[in-house]
Amino acid sequence: MQTPAATLPAASVRDFAVVFARVQPHMQALDVFLHAQLAAFEPEIREMADYCIDTSGKRIRPALVFFSGWQAGATVSPALVQVAAVVELVHLATLVHDDIMDEAALRRSRPTAAKKYGPEAAVLLGDALFAHALHLAARFPTTEVCAAVSDSTRKVCAGEIVQTLRRRSTAITRADYDRVIDLKTAELFRVSCSLGARLGGHGDAFADDAARFGRSLGIAYQIYDDLADFFGRETRIGKTLGTDLASGKLTLPLLYLRDRLPATERAELEAELEGRVPARLAQRLAEMKAFSVFDAVHAEIEQELVCAEAALARHPGLPPCEHLAALPLVLRAQVGALR
Amino acid sequence: MQTPAATLPAASVRDFAVVFARVQPHMQALDVFLHAQLAAFEPEIREMADYCIDTSGKRIRPALVFFSGWQAGATVSPALVQVAAVVELVHLATLVHDDIMDEAALRRSRPTAAKKYGPEAAVLLGDALFAHALHLAARFPTTEVCAAVSDSTRKVCAGEIVQTLRRRSTAITRADYDRVIDLKTAELFRVSCSLGARLGGHGDAFADDAARFGRSLGIAYQIYDDLADFFGRETRIGKTLGTDLASGKLTLPLLYLRDRLPATERAELEAELEGRVPARLAQRLAEMKAFSVFDAVHAEIEQELVCAEAALARHPGLPPCEHLAALPLVLRAQVGALR
Repeated sequence: MQTPAATLPAASVRDFAVVFARVQPHMQALDVFLHAQLAAFEPEIREMADYCIDTSGKRIRPALVFFSGWQAGATVSPALVQVAAVVELVHLATLVHDDIMDEAALRRSRPTAAKKYGPEAAVLLGDALFAHALHLAARFPTTEVCAAVSDSTRKVCAGEIVQTLRRRSTAITRADYDRVIDLKTAELFRVSCSLGARLGGHGDAFADDAARFGRSLGIAYQIYDDLADFFGRETRIGKTLGTDLASGKLTLPLLYLRDRLPATERAELEAELEGRVPARLAQRLAEMKAFSVFDAVHAEIEQELVCAEAALARHPGLPPCEHLAALPLVLRAQVGALR
Repeated sequence: MQTPAATLPAASVRDFAVVFARVQPHMQALDVFLHAQLAAFEPEIREMADYCIDTSGKRIRPALVFFSGWQAGATVSPALVQVAAVVELVHLATLVHDDIMDEAALRRSRPTAAKKYGPEAAVLLGDALFAHALHLAARFPTTEVCAAVSDSTRKVCAGEIVQTLRRRSTAITRADYDRVIDLKTAELFRVSCSLGARLGGHGDAFADDAARFGRSLGIAYQIYDDLADFFGRETRIGKTLGTDLASGKLTLPLLYLRDRLPATERAELEAELEGRVPARLAQRLAEMKAFSVFDAVHAEIEQELVCAEAALARHPGLPPCEHLAALPLVLRAQVGALR
């Protein structure tokens, strides 16, 4: 087995695009497959569904499927393509619904479906995408994929609901935050790795560890995303900064800041989160810098990435591991680029 | 085989409740089953899901499952209860999302989920209910239920999308209307009958005819529902009358009225539907009466009910038929009561 370092010097693994280039034929097959699905939609929805598929972004979850199910000779397996389409459609459906919640205008620098087609149509478009995902899941010979994906979807929705219900609430603990990101992000990462490994024929023991890897990577990725909402550059991440503070979402950087602020300042931050006074992003960012919030959050991400790597370490030489191991490296580079 | 007339004089078959009393043990088992499902939801969603399950109303789709799968000795089959729960949860999910679209305040005389918990939570609650339905569908030994239900759900969503996109449009034909009700209502009636028959062990030939029965009954039921929006009594149907006219939904009674109005009046009706002038419900209702719109729509319902009955006629003596045959009778009585 080549170690990731041997394949690709860590310094050059800075971008998902570089790592995902390894699964380019798989991603092309996925694109062909997804676009072929459009024919299954009613004509009125086809254009809307097409729009969503095109704005989908990085396709991290399909990459997790392809890497976890990696087979000798880099074979593009139709089963893996189909399950990649399932998890991606579930993800796209949740994005469509999220953007309604957030009243977001842009996603990856393009108008959101909710903005372009109206929130009503977007609710139903999300439903149709989700239903189609489950329809594809049901085409496998056994109920395994359908059961796993519907269970994950329920968890993703639960995470989103809990987050929505707690918006503008400051009675949120670290445990609450952990639970929400586990449900809303880590779950779909987990199931992508687990199903990929299983359909790739790598056995139960690896599938379980691939699931652990996916879950830890998902947690790390969501914390990174929450950190980028403060420390990112708009042009780079393709969305407005400071939306979590403005919309009253108590993410990890804000939890750390709140814990470190003196009582008076803390009460003011809570008033901003609760929407009683306007959010002061620049000041909060300056305070985050003063109180080393970045480093604290960075340490948390690192801890999860170490867990992710530990799950792979139990399977030396297994083809998927080489590729999966590149993903924590990419995420480290991305976090490093925020600083 | 007892004919429905022998079991129950047609004159007394006026209400779904009377016919559904035959499946009371099944419905009780369904209630127990549905409430047991709440434990699977995250605590924050449990109360919301419980609220939706309680406001569910008539449970027509589960009744279709139980009647289509009817077995000697009126056995309550766990498989039928589970599939009844699946179709009912899909239906409840679509109601939750519909009420967001319609900005409806009341459903069966209680606040809608969108009103009670906010539209954001309602979007996600609908998703979670739907995901749970598919999760239950995936628990069957084969992928048949999951495939059928996910396909139906996609069609239901498509019907709702098309209807939403065409709201306030007067460029709607009779073919458009037929297609929307086929997708948004008849499809779930159809799959309820088809899966009930199949899981009840009644064979492919009957399952196909049960599907035809369900589809025709669903079309008839939706046309009845659209007629009741004008000719119903609010206390009886539990919702505000005239909402289709007010919200610009060109249903069959309005299509008939439009065709029969002289040009000037027709232009005025179109202005109301397009939201350019306030809707005049009382006048439109008077015109519907003057132009015998009720009778014309009634004839359409009757035509579908005859088709539904013809599908059953091919299976004389089969236990499900006796019970299914009561449903067109009920619907006839309900339509008659509107006049």
